[in-house]
Amino acid sequence: MYSQKEFLQYFEEELAKQHFGGTPAQLYEPIHYSLSLYGKRLRPVLTLMACSLFDDDFKKALPQAIAIELFHNFTLIHDDIMDNAPVRRGKKTVFKKWDQNTAILSGDTLFAKAYQYAQMADKEILGDVLSVFSQTAIEVCEGQQFDLEFENRNDVSVEEYLEMIRLKTGVLFASSLKIGSFIGNAPKEDTENLYNFGIAIGLGFQLEDDLLDTYGDVAVFGKKTGGDIVTNKKTYLYLKALEKADDKTRQELIRLYNEPLQDEEQKINTVKGFFSELGVEKDTSLLIDEYFNESMHYLDKVNADEDKKNELRTIAKRMIHRVK
Amino acid sequence: MYSQKEFLQYFEEELAKQHFGGTPAQLYEPIHYSLSLYGKRLRPVLTLMACSLFDDDFKKALPQAIAIELFHNFTLIHDDIMDNAPVRRGKKTVFKKWDQNTAILSGDTLFAKAYQYAQMADKEILGDVLSVFSQTAIEVCEGQQFDLEFENRNDVSVEEYLEMIRLKTGVLFASSLKIGSFIGNAPKEDTENLYNFGIAIGLGFQLEDDLLDTYGDVAVFGKKTGGDIVTNKKTYLYLKALEKADDKTRQELIRLYNEPLQDEEQKINTVKGFFSELGVEKDTSLLIDEYFNESMHYLDKVNADEDKKNELRTIAKRMIHRVK
Repeated sequence: MYSQKEFLQYFEEELAKQHFGGTPAQLYEPIHYSLSLYGKRLRPVLTLMACSLFDDDFKKALPQAIAIELFHNFTLIHDDIMDNAPVRRGKKTVFKKWDQNTAILSGDTLFAKAYQYAQMADKEILGDVLSVFSQTAIEVCEGQQFDLEFENRNDVSVEEYLEMIRLKTGVLFASSLKIGSFIGNAPKEDTENLYNFGIAIGLGFQLEDDLLDTYGDVAVFGKKTGGDIVTNKKTYLYLKALEKADDKTRQELIRLYNEPLQDEEQKINTVKGFFSELGVEKDTSLLIDEYFNESMHYLDKVNADEDKKNELRTIAKRMIHRVK
Repeated sequence: MYSQKEFLQYFEEELAKQHFGGTPAQLYEPIHYSLSLYGKRLRPVLTLMACSLFDDDFKKALPQAIAIELFHNFTLIHDDIMDNAPVRRGKKTVFKKWDQNTAILSGDTLFAKAYQYAQMADKEILGDVLSVFSQTAIEVCEGQQFDLEFENRNDVSVEEYLEMIRLKTGVLFASSLKIGSFIGNAPKEDTENLYNFGIAIGLGFQLEDDLLDTYGDVAVFGKKTGGDIVTNKKTYLYLKALEKADDKTRQELIRLYNEPLQDEEQKINTVKGFFSELGVEKDTSLLIDEYFNESMHYLDKVNADEDKKNELRTIAKRMIHRVK
């Protein structure tokens, strides 16, 4: 039985062997660059693991694992343009290293390449695989659109936020698992339970992200905390604070997130002061625990070898209760 | 038997019935807007016509015809950002009417929607359909990248230009036909001949575009001629002129296409003067005729009803020897 680390190693080795195209060079260099930035490869590993629950020959899910990773990188390349983000994983983003047109077009190409890999499935399951893949692509775009719109709105509800992160982050984790289980010829019920497991860990993962950005241990987190507060990001912490605050505090928080930045440290401290008063750190932790428990609930129901499921339990725990 | 006009009418009616999604509104409004700008719908009509060559029930190719049109619109939305084009078909482009982020993201969504339609094929041919669809998508991106790069190069050859327009324009016409023929369960040889027919009419279509932009009858063409010259577009006319010119004229042409615009009319007249001297209008017409003949050659070889093939001959003639 493979461990998570072995799945990852297998995936990295196989990804490195792929040839994504040659000319025009300026179209394909950004693709190779983007893929070489070494993300955590969580999604393709989930695809391989989900397949292995139902079929020891999990390697047949490799094309779809690659498809998921290519799709994920495509969304990062385009999101970085939209968010005007200069740096990702410590390196220049594609649109900063090259230019915006190159980032649009190499992103588009990567999206089509992702489909080329997703298509490599037996004809008996090809329709199911692609149906989930395309639906996911659309939902991820919807999530990103909501995220962009939230930047200019002061009335975003906690519920809307959770729906946004479900679309933007949750469904891709969920589909990574579901598609892997399709390749393993899993029964329908198991594919659905794995999908729901993925939604829950995706939501927990994103909320943990929100939490760490404000409350992470700087030495372990590896970067300064408070970035979301400085950039007025409407995270769960902020929206929950707005929900719980009295009128006066709510107005003050809204003002702080709409006025030009004056003193960075002071703003972080003031906002964190409100967050403490309102107990939103605790609320977020509790909700993360809820999603973790929900994810376990769905995974429990999957009919597969317990040892293999334990590997997924471990990955879920690491994703949701991580420190960086 | 349907005429081209009836195929078009059928397609327009069916396209109007489709629901492309609702929320977030700012993601889907640009999609509806883009599709309502009424292009010529040449590509989806070719898909339906190609299917009808082999199967009277051509309506089963509707999903793929829609997929092709959605894909084409996706490329227009993204190309307009890259080309910084404010107007298309007399209306504001998506990125001008909304903004750039909206155009990137609604384009991405449209691309995924296109796949959702392309996927609606019998499992026996689904793999073939998607293989051509994805390969085409990648080649269209490659063509666009070459086109962007040519803007900054003074050493583009006629051969490179023809390869660029083959990728950017030819392959989508070719695939529209090929995919339609797949749906009609055409023999492999016929699908290949239709593909080559499509490449030839695509190339002829684009060269006719180049020719009309400079030499069109303004009253019929509907807009001022000379636009390509004013914007320094490296068309077939220009590149052929460079190829045929002596050193002095070549340097002069390169200078005119690289210096800031002074007098628009004067530049058009000077360049057209060189074009006349070098006989490139005639060269272009001859090459268009060659592609037309080549297209007929491939269509002749297709084993299908002559009356139906005549409809395709008519559409090819209209596309290649058009006046606007």
